[in-house]
Amino acid sequence: MTKSALQIARAAYQPKLPKALKGAVKVQEGEPTQSVADQEEIKKLFPNTYGMPLIKFVEGEEKEYAPMNVGVILSGGQAPGGHNVISGLFDGVKKLNPANKLYGFILGPGGLVDHKYMELTADIIDEYRNTGGFDIIGSGRTKLEKEDQFEKGYEILKELGIKALVIIGGDDSNTNACVLAEYYAAKNYGIQVIGCPKTIDGDLKNDMIETSFGFDTACKTYAEVIGNIQRDCNSARKYWHFIKLMGRSASHIALECALQVQPNVCIISEEVETKNMSLDDVVTYIAQVVADRAAAGNNFGTVLIPEGLIEFIPAMKRLIAELNDFLAANGEEFNNIKRSKQREYIISKLTPENAAIYASLPEGVARQLSLDRDPHGNVQVSLIETEKLLSEMVATKLAAWKEEGKYVGKFAAQHHFFGYEGRCAAPSNFDADYCYSLGYTASMLIANGKTGYMSSVRNTTAPAAEWIAGGVPITMMMNMERRHGEMKPVIQKALVKLDGAPFKAFAAQRETWAKETAYVYPGPIQYFGPTEVCDQPTKTLQLEQAK
Amino acid sequence: MTKSALQIARAAYQPKLPKALKGAVKVQEGEPTQSVADQEEIKKLFPNTYGMPLIKFVEGEEKEYAPMNVGVILSGGQAPGGHNVISGLFDGVKKLNPANKLYGFILGPGGLVDHKYMELTADIIDEYRNTGGFDIIGSGRTKLEKEDQFEKGYEILKELGIKALVIIGGDDSNTNACVLAEYYAAKNYGIQVIGCPKTIDGDLKNDMIETSFGFDTACKTYAEVIGNIQRDCNSARKYWHFIKLMGRSASHIALECALQVQPNVCIISEEVETKNMSLDDVVTYIAQVVADRAAAGNNFGTVLIPEGLIEFIPAMKRLIAELNDFLAANGEEFNNIKRSKQREYIISKLTPENAAIYASLPEGVARQLSLDRDPHGNVQVSLIETEKLLSEMVATKLAAWKEEGKYVGKFAAQHHFFGYEGRCAAPSNFDADYCYSLGYTASMLIANGKTGYMSSVRNTTAPAAEWIAGGVPITMMMNMERRHGEMKPVIQKALVKLDGAPFKAFAAQRETWAKETAYVYPGPIQYFGPTEVCDQPTKTLQLEQAK
Repeated sequence: MTKSALQIARAAYQPKLPKALKGAVKVQEGEPTQSVADQEEIKKLFPNTYGMPLIKFVEGEEKEYAPMNVGVILSGGQAPGGHNVISGLFDGVKKLNPANKLYGFILGPGGLVDHKYMELTADIIDEYRNTGGFDIIGSGRTKLEKEDQFEKGYEILKELGIKALVIIGGDDSNTNACVLAEYYAAKNYGIQVIGCPKTIDGDLKNDMIETSFGFDTACKTYAEVIGNIQRDCNSARKYWHFIKLMGRSASHIALECALQVQPNVCIISEEVETKNMSLDDVVTYIAQVVADRAAAGNNFGTVLIPEGLIEFIPAMKRLIAELNDFLAANGEEFNNIKRSKQREYIISKLTPENAAIYASLPEGVARQLSLDRDPHGNVQVSLIETEKLLSEMVATKLAAWKEEGKYVGKFAAQHHFFGYEGRCAAPSNFDADYCYSLGYTASMLIANGKTGYMSSVRNTTAPAAEWIAGGVPITMMMNMERRHGEMKPVIQKALVKLDGAPFKAFAAQRETWAKETAYVYPGPIQYFGPTEVCDQPTKTLQLEQAK
Repeated sequence: MTKSALQIARAAYQPKLPKALKGAVKVQEGEPTQSVADQEEIKKLFPNTYGMPLIKFVEGEEKEYAPMNVGVILSGGQAPGGHNVISGLFDGVKKLNPANKLYGFILGPGGLVDHKYMELTADIIDEYRNTGGFDIIGSGRTKLEKEDQFEKGYEILKELGIKALVIIGGDDSNTNACVLAEYYAAKNYGIQVIGCPKTIDGDLKNDMIETSFGFDTACKTYAEVIGNIQRDCNSARKYWHFIKLMGRSASHIALECALQVQPNVCIISEEVETKNMSLDDVVTYIAQVVADRAAAGNNFGTVLIPEGLIEFIPAMKRLIAELNDFLAANGEEFNNIKRSKQREYIISKLTPENAAIYASLPEGVARQLSLDRDPHGNVQVSLIETEKLLSEMVATKLAAWKEEGKYVGKFAAQHHFFGYEGRCAAPSNFDADYCYSLGYTASMLIANGKTGYMSSVRNTTAPAAEWIAGGVPITMMMNMERRHGEMKPVIQKALVKLDGAPFKAFAAQRETWAKETAYVYPGPIQYFGPTEVCDQPTKTLQLEQAK
């Protein structure tokens, strides 16, 4: 394997651990916990794993642990630092007893069900320390939800003498980890399940989980290239750059990038939804910023757009729902309509409110909404190029304003979408340390017989030595939500809070950023320089923890 | 101005200079020079600036220089390091005599003609040291070609007491710098003109100019994000990523990125042209790599595509030329054809060869070729999304092969285009040092009365102290080429040489890279770490200079 100079230099980095984890540890138990809502229902569904106490590790006496094998699974989309969770887990497991073995299940939860696995030896682990990606064992999106999957998993876990399984994933994967923990506990299979909070989207966090891993590195990578684009924008002074950022279900990434780079516009989906803004409201807001800047002679700027925006616009959600229902019922008739008549046909069939919105959409998007459908017949919202949709609609609005004499200027747009660029970046120092600590903590939870817990590392805006390692019962984060028509116990998703410190910091400055060219250029992630350059956590985390 | 932590730390960086420039310098003249071709014609066109000797600066005696003012212009597209050329120039000019002033012309060559300028003081310069972008004075694309422009420029230069003008630009801007130098010399205006080799495209280089500035940083920035995508690709194992890279007139960027990241496929336009490959040949080549990888169970990969590919495919060039001619003559008739009949109409009018190619194009691209035309009626090749064009055509071919039983696999594509992400990145150590040295060297050329020279810094694969600073007569790089129907003296553009060391290194390994997953992950540019991480020049430069 050819390695870059940075990969070679970075392989030698020894991630920092919380002080309490450096020697022998003991468990300090807190009070029993409750789920965030729907306590009675959650308690009934998780009789063996509900109400457990919060756990904190503190320095303890050296003691001997019986040999044990551990399994690990990477679940869902990649996030920087996954390899460090595994190397922290490996080091922890080996420290407990060098005879312990760590097994990785291949290509996600499917590997457990299909019995595809490999032993992760020191040689393999050393190849992946402080690297990005999930390629050490691969990841996958199979959902562990059904009893026959749990039983298939049990077969191989028993065969390999695995005492505990660590599932590294987002909110859904951790929900499933908890269901699995409960199942194995109820069956007395003697297999523990521990979760680790992963997602670049930043939507798995709460009072006990300060941030999900990968968010730090991904946002810094996006902020680097957005900063570069802004410097270009401010040099060439002739383009508006519409930049879409990954993250469908929450706008944390867009918000964090905005705090880092100070763009002219950043749309936050949660605000759009709360204020019941229409697509036209969003377009008008952007167009007004463009027009105001043009009036000051600045025909350039930057707009950050969260990937999931369309699904947060209440009127668009209604349109999509009606389209899905209508085309499910009338697909055959629709397919017989001539291509050039399809748009009129759809408009004639929708309710007046939805027909008006549909008619206002640029042709390409309208066509996509009615044609590009998934195997269940639903609109594929993720294929909508929201950055182009918005810039086209802004251009149309500006043209109208120009005719009315309300806008004088030139409008030319460039489009970008960043997602895959950041999900597998090599982890920042923060993520390298945080992930390693999460993995190491997981090994301690296992050694101490815990199940249904999520590995937790807190106080993360302090230096790593002062971080607090422990475990949080996953049931504590749960509530009941409707999923595919059924009420299910799930980990509550953390959306951007409009009364939270990060959004308020953004909202307090955005008018200034819109008018002035107040761009900040964060530059690339640094690993070796001064600590204020290399070790700062995200603005989101700093603002949230400053409270 | 809010600054990022990296900006603040980086502002303190003192770029390295060649040893000879650290103290007083003297000029060492070489032999008289000849242009690379068409010597008689170039000599006739440049009687005052032809045949001048190569110049090298060596350590000399301290001497006094008369006060002088200097002007500087940024011309054309942004490239990392422009601000360092200006700060090197500033430091050189001030060292010669602290009373000297440096003026910047605003928004490119247009600023000279329109008398828009500002004095660049120490306070301003200090804000921009080691930063990316051209925003200190802005850039522009006005071409300095006409005598009335030269005369308008002379007015303001005289008014400001400017003895010399430094033009920072690509091959065309440096050609124009030389024409201006010749004009002012012929008129005895007493104003010198010095060029500096700028372009991320890397196509301004020759025996005396080892590389243009910005190429290093831009390629490393692209390689960072491509590497991240490759890590994602190798983790998720389900997408083919088609990645287009900026650079219309040469494929140096794609080639350098390929050498850095080892993708599965990289198309080099110069090879496509030399081998007279058709679009179908290119598509077949990619599809074959996809099919072979699929046969080995790998339904994922990466394809690098130079932005200018379409214009290098001889058959496409012929099609576009015929389309341009046809639509220029028959635009009105075409506009009256119904949208749904336009494609058939075009096919019926083209020669059989071109009609067949046109018919083979995906609908979106075919439509764009006939509809999206610039104000001169020409196809806007730069709007063609080559990365999508190729992936669509590859998908079509694979579907056909599947029916024939020649391909078994899944093909899903993601698309990326990187350009603006790298043009204004903060300069790497190499570009920071190289640019600063180029600017400083320019001040020494001016102090020694030179005009029509390009600032030159050679031996750039050695440590900076050993670099050789001097000047190269711009006429030396010229030949006669047809431009807009007229023969013109221009700096010869450096395309990728198929017998050059970089291409040969790539060609020797690409079959392996196609089959195996041999990805390298360069990671982000580092400024503070070990020298092998922070100070390596590009692979292109290393391979070229190793000869």
